[in-house]
Amino acid sequence: MKKELPGRVEIIAVGSELLTPYFQDTNSLYLSSRLNDLGWTVAFKTIVGDDREDLRLRLREALRRTRLVMVMGGLGPTGDDITREAVAGALGRDLVLQRDVLERIEDRFRRRQLPMPRANKKQALIIRGAAVLPNRNGTAPGQLIRVGGKKIVLLPGPPHELKPMCEESVWPALGEEQCGHLTRAVLRATGLTESMVEALISDLYPKTTDLGLTILASPGQIEFQLCAFSAVSRVLAENKLRRLKSRLIRRLRNHVFSETGESLEEIVGLLLKKQKKTLAVAESCSGGLISHRLTNVPGSSEYFLEGAIAYSNAAKIDLLAVPPDLIETHGAVSFPVARAMASGIRRRARADLGLAVTGIAGPTGGSPDKPVGLVFTALAWPGGTEVQKNLFLGKREQVKLQSTQKALDMVRRHLLQKARAKKRRTR
Amino acid sequence: MKKELPGRVEIIAVGSELLTPYFQDTNSLYLSSRLNDLGWTVAFKTIVGDDREDLRLRLREALRRTRLVMVMGGLGPTGDDITREAVAGALGRDLVLQRDVLERIEDRFRRRQLPMPRANKKQALIIRGAAVLPNRNGTAPGQLIRVGGKKIVLLPGPPHELKPMCEESVWPALGEEQCGHLTRAVLRATGLTESMVEALISDLYPKTTDLGLTILASPGQIEFQLCAFSAVSRVLAENKLRRLKSRLIRRLRNHVFSETGESLEEIVGLLLKKQKKTLAVAESCSGGLISHRLTNVPGSSEYFLEGAIAYSNAAKIDLLAVPPDLIETHGAVSFPVARAMASGIRRRARADLGLAVTGIAGPTGGSPDKPVGLVFTALAWPGGTEVQKNLFLGKREQVKLQSTQKALDMVRRHLLQKARAKKRRTR
Repeated sequence: MKKELPGRVEIIAVGSELLTPYFQDTNSLYLSSRLNDLGWTVAFKTIVGDDREDLRLRLREALRRTRLVMVMGGLGPTGDDITREAVAGALGRDLVLQRDVLERIEDRFRRRQLPMPRANKKQALIIRGAAVLPNRNGTAPGQLIRVGGKKIVLLPGPPHELKPMCEESVWPALGEEQCGHLTRAVLRATGLTESMVEALISDLYPKTTDLGLTILASPGQIEFQLCAFSAVSRVLAENKLRRLKSRLIRRLRNHVFSETGESLEEIVGLLLKKQKKTLAVAESCSGGLISHRLTNVPGSSEYFLEGAIAYSNAAKIDLLAVPPDLIETHGAVSFPVARAMASGIRRRARADLGLAVTGIAGPTGGSPDKPVGLVFTALAWPGGTEVQKNLFLGKREQVKLQSTQKALDMVRRHLLQKARAKKRRTR
Repeated sequence: MKKELPGRVEIIAVGSELLTPYFQDTNSLYLSSRLNDLGWTVAFKTIVGDDREDLRLRLREALRRTRLVMVMGGLGPTGDDITREAVAGALGRDLVLQRDVLERIEDRFRRRQLPMPRANKKQALIIRGAAVLPNRNGTAPGQLIRVGGKKIVLLPGPPHELKPMCEESVWPALGEEQCGHLTRAVLRATGLTESMVEALISDLYPKTTDLGLTILASPGQIEFQLCAFSAVSRVLAENKLRRLKSRLIRRLRNHVFSETGESLEEIVGLLLKKQKKTLAVAESCSGGLISHRLTNVPGSSEYFLEGAIAYSNAAKIDLLAVPPDLIETHGAVSFPVARAMASGIRRRARADLGLAVTGIAGPTGGSPDKPVGLVFTALAWPGGTEVQKNLFLGKREQVKLQSTQKALDMVRRHLLQKARAKKRRTR
């Protein structure tokens, strides 16, 4: 039975702020990813407030069902940091003030030329029998406690303390005892709706428990999360995963833009770099989001020359040399204006490619003729132009996001076509 | 003792995808917010995979410690939707096929002119004794089950089904029995570091359990989450909250930009609208993020005229009329170039205010003289200009975000000053 499988983990995040509407735990995503790499499966994630009794009970329940419990947060110096005491209580063990740990904390303050506040002494309390996990980036050390065949790991909450501690101390300790091999992959696709995906791949859903496929739709993007498990070897797990992946790609074809986790803007950047092309962008309703996404990629200054956010008609005429009579005749949100914007920014920036978006992001500004969500995306290149008419559903920010996704995908498809054409010519 | 307080809730999200590194539950943030409004406190949040036995056990534990358990997800028609069966099992109750519910599901398919797949019949199974919560936006109804003095609510996972169901059926049912009054507020500030905040307000930390204060720092922003509780009345809770809030504001002064949850771009938009001013933006290292943020606000076309992302020197010269010799003498990342960019975009767009950012976002491009994170932000108005030199820490996206935060705050402070000056003149 599944319950007896080795390698089940519970992740417990401690902190009352994580129970408010304002704050979310993200550490657990990092922990899950690395635990999976080592063959562990996360069975539960829990959030508990700064309450000693609640944490004590939760920890006991966790130990009943999982082989590893990772507790993060609540190791600070203040009164509401209750993790050490609660865990010691749950296990019926003492807390021991450990000299060398205290000295390391004092030393940390000394180096910053500050006196150590008395409260920090508490951070040198170690649960009897625990191994100390050094903290390079903060005062609270982590702890690793063995309880029968099980393990509890205490980690500080701040990501910049937790991650290096895991990389240096926790994963090496847990990696020693593999519990089977789980391997994962992500495919990302665009230009498809959920129901199109369903029609294309519904017969590929895994029928055995050693394979997993989850499909996540977000505005303008569909993500396929694949996983494969083997109790025997990593190679077996990877082979299973590869087979599932290539079956999916055969069905989804060039809608798949990334097989190794890249964003669409990263893929567009890689293609532009490879083909030594430059890009300039004119945005109306997407309001700068295309440029923002493109410039999030380090090194984008190599191919991204400039962007113009032409919100007003004056800006479209003045910045992008859109003929005023085009706007008058067809309106700012129209096929010919989109094309003129793409050509205009391309010429102005002396770029190889000009990309443009004009549309109605809403919530107001729509009409029966031109409803909210109507967006024209256009691409101009030395030999021609292409314009697409789209109707996106959703709120303002979702319309913006889908517009950028479609526009960037036009660049991707254009560059792929060029590459294929070139290949054919050189054959 | 805290444990005996009425009104403790556990939220359980069901779904194996929520245990992967790729996916996060966000429904619980909505639930927490609305539960708080009704006087309930979230004591635990748990995520359980699609595993009947795991959910059954977790639910039993939850019932031991909380008065209300909200379970979301796992009400779909497929084999891995296990919530109905697991909850019935935990309570030792039957599942009953309810005719009227089945008819409603069949009717839903009929209206879409589709045959009902057999699998969906399962969604008409109701736990004996449960009240059915209608689902306007999907096939799976919710269920509300009373167990002794406690309650279990089953909700569908998709937010567009869960939220209307809560608003229409769940909150009215839970509101009947208030368990005290919890009220919350959020202050947002910028232009302060965490240690500056600590120095300013450390003596204001609440010393009683009926008041709460949580401080969350993110790049360029510090958020203060306040809450106050009264067992007696909402008015008492609100009075306590108001006192804490005004004490904080007296210390933090004009660093506080929002007292009711607005983002900085919304506040800037409100001020621009009120003073009937227009804005144009020239961005280098922030790469379009200022324009993107400004245009996320509905109605921003009223005051936002245009943006230019001048990544290359050519674009700075050509788009913004920055004198080439300024760039040659001082470099593109410099005090005078930032000022010229702000004036340039202001003149080009014929706007009241011109805002500009130039800097080094990294990871490459830094030098000992001009390190990664060096950013100049500049504002130009009819009567003059202001330039600020900043050094931001963090990765590329964090530097971008802090740059936009600083730039938008310059607009905010400028407009507030104008408003104050005007008030003085009219006195």
